[in-house]
Amino acid sequence: MSKSNSLRPGKHLLQIPGPTNIPDRVLRAMSYPTIDHRGPDFAEITKRVLDRIKSIFKTTQPVIMFPASGTGAWEAAIVNTLNPKDKILMFETGQFSFLWAEQAKKLSLEVDFVPGDWRHGADPKIVEQKLSQDKSHKIKAVLVLHNETATGVVSNISKIRKAMDSAKHPALLLVDTISSLASIDYRHDEWKVDVTVGGSQKGLLLPPGLSFNAISQKALDAHSRSTMQKAYWDWKPMLENNKNGFFPYTPATNLVFGLDEALNMLMEEGLENVFKRHTKLAEAARIAVKAWGLEILAKNPEEYSNTITAVLLPEGHDADNLRKIILDDYNMSLGMGLNKIKGKVFRIGHLGDFNELMLLGALAGVEMNGADVEDIVLLL
Amino acid sequence: MSKSNSLRPGKHLLQIPGPTNIPDRVLRAMSYPTIDHRGPDFAEITKRVLDRIKSIFKTTQPVIMFPASGTGAWEAAIVNTLNPKDKILMFETGQFSFLWAEQAKKLSLEVDFVPGDWRHGADPKIVEQKLSQDKSHKIKAVLVLHNETATGVVSNISKIRKAMDSAKHPALLLVDTISSLASIDYRHDEWKVDVTVGGSQKGLLLPPGLSFNAISQKALDAHSRSTMQKAYWDWKPMLENNKNGFFPYTPATNLVFGLDEALNMLMEEGLENVFKRHTKLAEAARIAVKAWGLEILAKNPEEYSNTITAVLLPEGHDADNLRKIILDDYNMSLGMGLNKIKGKVFRIGHLGDFNELMLLGALAGVEMNGADVEDIVLLL
Repeated sequence: MSKSNSLRPGKHLLQIPGPTNIPDRVLRAMSYPTIDHRGPDFAEITKRVLDRIKSIFKTTQPVIMFPASGTGAWEAAIVNTLNPKDKILMFETGQFSFLWAEQAKKLSLEVDFVPGDWRHGADPKIVEQKLSQDKSHKIKAVLVLHNETATGVVSNISKIRKAMDSAKHPALLLVDTISSLASIDYRHDEWKVDVTVGGSQKGLLLPPGLSFNAISQKALDAHSRSTMQKAYWDWKPMLENNKNGFFPYTPATNLVFGLDEALNMLMEEGLENVFKRHTKLAEAARIAVKAWGLEILAKNPEEYSNTITAVLLPEGHDADNLRKIILDDYNMSLGMGLNKIKGKVFRIGHLGDFNELMLLGALAGVEMNGADVEDIVLLL
Repeated sequence: MSKSNSLRPGKHLLQIPGPTNIPDRVLRAMSYPTIDHRGPDFAEITKRVLDRIKSIFKTTQPVIMFPASGTGAWEAAIVNTLNPKDKILMFETGQFSFLWAEQAKKLSLEVDFVPGDWRHGADPKIVEQKLSQDKSHKIKAVLVLHNETATGVVSNISKIRKAMDSAKHPALLLVDTISSLASIDYRHDEWKVDVTVGGSQKGLLLPPGLSFNAISQKALDAHSRSTMQKAYWDWKPMLENNKNGFFPYTPATNLVFGLDEALNMLMEEGLENVFKRHTKLAEAARIAVKAWGLEILAKNPEEYSNTITAVLLPEGHDADNLRKIILDDYNMSLGMGLNKIKGKVFRIGHLGDFNELMLLGALAGVEMNGADVEDIVLLL
């Protein structure tokens, strides 16, 4: 099948922050013929997948999956736990925090959106301060992105949890892990997260189209009191049907086949080894960026992302032009700068099914970008 | 990859009313490596797919697709065109009409649900009567399933349109074509349908995970006045992004690859030939059911479905037991009776990538069911 008018020989390097390079084993599993989603074989796969994925979130509590993008699982986290016009606390860490906040507003919520410079994570001190001041408990939830996909900045969820506990505030904690799950250490139960939002297309090694909510008991209690309008995203029929391996509506069968195989792969490698691999490759990427004399967008080394490195270009250079040249000449996709940082940064995704020589190829592609164009400085 | 503990040699016959047997060409297309959903190649595919799919709906107006099941596209049709607590008119044609009505109630709508016996389609006379009586135009939309997947009964959308026109009533017409699209003739523009809901996993030859709204200008006007809460399902950012081949959130890339190939196949065969093939195979299935001395659930031959035949078993026979035997002994899945007709009917899906010898195999599987069990009559 022709994907494009422009044939580019050799394997494409998909170094955006997701979707990621899909393992052949997963692509093959997805091309297994579709089966009856109400039959015994599919029920068995569903139960196996929903049981095994818990370990990826480090939880013993329910995880559910939607046939939807991550944006859908964001919406599910909100409409299942909150009430119309509730106040929530969010942090401007980058484009995806902005989009989640915009979604919350569309869903009638009042968002206290703490401004940020797109170079830092959510600040636990501000969480503690805001919640301590909120004596009447008007803030119903704190929404944070574990890893801001737009900037490559990690927020410290453990510290945010401690800040919430110090403030003795009952707000729910909702965390997006779309670009960190199965790549950067994350602990749903230990950090007492109420809803963790996940997506299929990054560390989970799948194409987009599945998304997840890991759910705490406190979130389930909130659900029972929530009056927000919901149908497709409603947890209740999902949890009831999942018990027997079924769904309230047709699941994305072939992505579930792929997930079954992706879980096999993650478990064969071992989740802690997956984290170590991402740490090592991310450190190598950052060393290269520094060797190029360029600046990493993330200001604080403790907040460096092990899945994504956003690289600032010097004034006067257009990152989108750089990305276009690299795509056209070297068959590699890099992530673009979004919104406030459009054209100013490019992002290297170093996550998922990824290894040393893929990274070195990716870094070489960036280095070679300037070899045959005038307006880009040869960086080495 | 092992799908089950029970190995069943030979090819599985997936004769449920959907998901359907997926063509190998589509399975292979879906296993093409995932690419950048914001890059130029994917934009080209998106534009090509969204342009070509219009002919499947017989429309020149916009068609949008969601990374979601058909149930999601139902929700989108409602929340984009209606207002909270609006009154709508629906017909109890079977389980899926019931589920759509339940969803509408969850979304705050008042449903005038005309009772039915699950053996007939929506009655155009009642549409005309109800709308004529509604002088103050309280009814804002008529929601009908073109093909009721639970019963194999087709509602005549052309006649329903005429009834609405005769009543000179401004209600919107929302039609579900999940189990008829690309299988039974359907005309979004000619029948002045305002929103047509489609799904990927039936006549469109794909696994589940994509769903569609084909949209009229009247529906777009209603959207601009609609105050229903919406975020994920909102048409506006979808239509804006689609213009350039993009989406407001991550699309289900590999299902879109599959859709591109499925459209190639449907166009190679020719849509009118696809309809003729479904008509012929459905007629053959019905002749067999009658030869068995069994009753087709659909009462009115003019409402017979060319995609699904639901077969009534004689009193005292359990259709689910029959289905289990056929699955275990002959490696074929049939559709179950849902809700009110559970255990009383089985459903033969004869749609999608399907031909004469597959049908004859399916019919033989039903005939052979009784050969080695006591409680099932050998039907021939």
